[in-house]
Amino acid sequence: MSATIHRLDNRPQPSLEPMVQLVAQDMNLVNAVILDRMQSEIPLIPELAGHLIAGGGKRMRPMLTLASAKLLGYPGNRHHRLAAAVEFIHTATLLHDDVVDGSDLRRGKRTANLIWGNPASVLVGDFLFSRSFELMVEDGSLKVLKILSSASAIIAEGEVNQLTAARRLDIGEQRYLDIIGAKTAALFAAACRIAAVVAERPEAEEAALDAYGRNLGIAFQLVDDAIDYVSDADTMGKDAGDDFREGKMTLPVILAFARGSEEDRRFWQAAIHGHRTSDADFAQAVSLIRGARAVEDTLARARHYGQRAIDALGLFAGGKAKDAMIEAVEFAIGRAY
Amino acid sequence: MSATIHRLDNRPQPSLEPMVQLVAQDMNLVNAVILDRMQSEIPLIPELAGHLIAGGGKRMRPMLTLASAKLLGYPGNRHHRLAAAVEFIHTATLLHDDVVDGSDLRRGKRTANLIWGNPASVLVGDFLFSRSFELMVEDGSLKVLKILSSASAIIAEGEVNQLTAARRLDIGEQRYLDIIGAKTAALFAAACRIAAVVAERPEAEEAALDAYGRNLGIAFQLVDDAIDYVSDADTMGKDAGDDFREGKMTLPVILAFARGSEEDRRFWQAAIHGHRTSDADFAQAVSLIRGARAVEDTLARARHYGQRAIDALGLFAGGKAKDAMIEAVEFAIGRAY
Repeated sequence: MSATIHRLDNRPQPSLEPMVQLVAQDMNLVNAVILDRMQSEIPLIPELAGHLIAGGGKRMRPMLTLASAKLLGYPGNRHHRLAAAVEFIHTATLLHDDVVDGSDLRRGKRTANLIWGNPASVLVGDFLFSRSFELMVEDGSLKVLKILSSASAIIAEGEVNQLTAARRLDIGEQRYLDIIGAKTAALFAAACRIAAVVAERPEAEEAALDAYGRNLGIAFQLVDDAIDYVSDADTMGKDAGDDFREGKMTLPVILAFARGSEEDRRFWQAAIHGHRTSDADFAQAVSLIRGARAVEDTLARARHYGQRAIDALGLFAGGKAKDAMIEAVEFAIGRAY
Repeated sequence: MSATIHRLDNRPQPSLEPMVQLVAQDMNLVNAVILDRMQSEIPLIPELAGHLIAGGGKRMRPMLTLASAKLLGYPGNRHHRLAAAVEFIHTATLLHDDVVDGSDLRRGKRTANLIWGNPASVLVGDFLFSRSFELMVEDGSLKVLKILSSASAIIAEGEVNQLTAARRLDIGEQRYLDIIGAKTAALFAAACRIAAVVAERPEAEEAALDAYGRNLGIAFQLVDDAIDYVSDADTMGKDAGDDFREGKMTLPVILAFARGSEEDRRFWQAAIHGHRTSDADFAQAVSLIRGARAVEDTLARARHYGQRAIDALGLFAGGKAKDAMIEAVEFAIGRAY
């Protein structure tokens, strides 16, 4: 029997649709938990939370919990509540992120902090975060609680790490990877891993699903950061150039700076310190990044992690679930083309 | 045998000192956990957290966990880690509160948000909150996790409730009590209750300690809100008049408005909507509140809850721990005189 080798980019138009279909029925049940548990006697809470939770979004993280459970043939229903908990953690961090970044657009809609103010976004984020722990406690697995409380602490550390890295051109690729590994990939990894916990599978399968989620998460964030220098608000639901104007040190900038001339570096110095924020400045940034091939190489890095995510699934038998999880990686990478 | 009746105000100068002494050794161990677990590879986290955690504060909530454990004769050490978790939840809410209120002074020191900015305060708060759950998971009691995750959600709901009540003169006493019951008393109650859980005491003792903490918390907050209209920054570590200038609807204002003349009410309308923020305006507010006896009667309400806290301890045998817990209530009330 010959080896089964799944390579990235072997499909012309990869889609998230197979994974969406795979978990559609489960996701209806997760959505019911989400809607039920974001309620409160304080009307502002469901109003504000609903704006973000009901307002589109791919439900990528709970989808990963559900798809992982399918991959393992888990026959129970504990993962519905836990997938909702994962989505609440994610929503809480989005609410706080938008306050931290002062963002005014998310998924093509006005941000909650713009509509209801920073205080409400901070506090409703806290509520959703607490509610996610209540959901986990109801499930009753200390192992799941450990995985998700640890992921939450790592996310917060990653966000602080990113904050202190803002507007600092001496940030290298490794620190950038540390940041996205914490702020994005940790929750992807945890979302997948908890499926193996509820399905009571051996540690090796837990670790494999963790690796799939973690590498997918890194690839996902790398592509997101690349897109900020190629796309516009219509196609990605956030303003292209947001990262640039906030002085965020993402890999495209790190590479363009490392590879740039003295003159290029002076531009980046001024830009990252907030002295280049016009549309013309952003156009120049895009041009320098193109000259340095920084988007292509950021995407090359993303493919590396994407391939690792796919290979982490080698342990599991083939089938619809595995195919969908592989195509989800191809989709995550393919978004940028 | 005659009844044992403990009445408030039977001591000339009640002090927190007996409770501080009672738990001093335990508190050293709690402080060691706090210092150890607020560490992170991201230097800003211990720096910012340490500013607030090391910077004074009575450690009222962990002290209540320790004192309750003493009352029950609990011989173990699980409560040290859990008391640290309680303090982390409290610290996280303080960091977020100061962002929400735009405060610049807390416990007589500059607030973290003033020094490091709102984004850092939001994110370090999130970190401490996650860390508190990690500590609870390490302890391993689902019952404690349930009590504290539920308290956390209630605190966040209370904060949102308070936010939506700001600058609204139609807030009545009951809604005010709902708010302080959630944002302050819920954690006091949980801090006491978890001692009964680790000591494996019957439900009635859990409920009694919960009632002690809850009523003490309400009394504590009522006195805090009264002090804002009688004291100055030197004596209370926050600016007197803060609540007034932020348009916070606390009981002194609710009573003064309810009892005021038409002219008084016009003043309160303007004040609560932010059109009266000078020192002279605050002096007039204090004068109207004095005329309405609103501080005295806020304190009378506080004594009511304080007496209920003391009576909730009726179930427990007398001794040093009980005496200290009774005197703590008297101290909480006595601060305002």
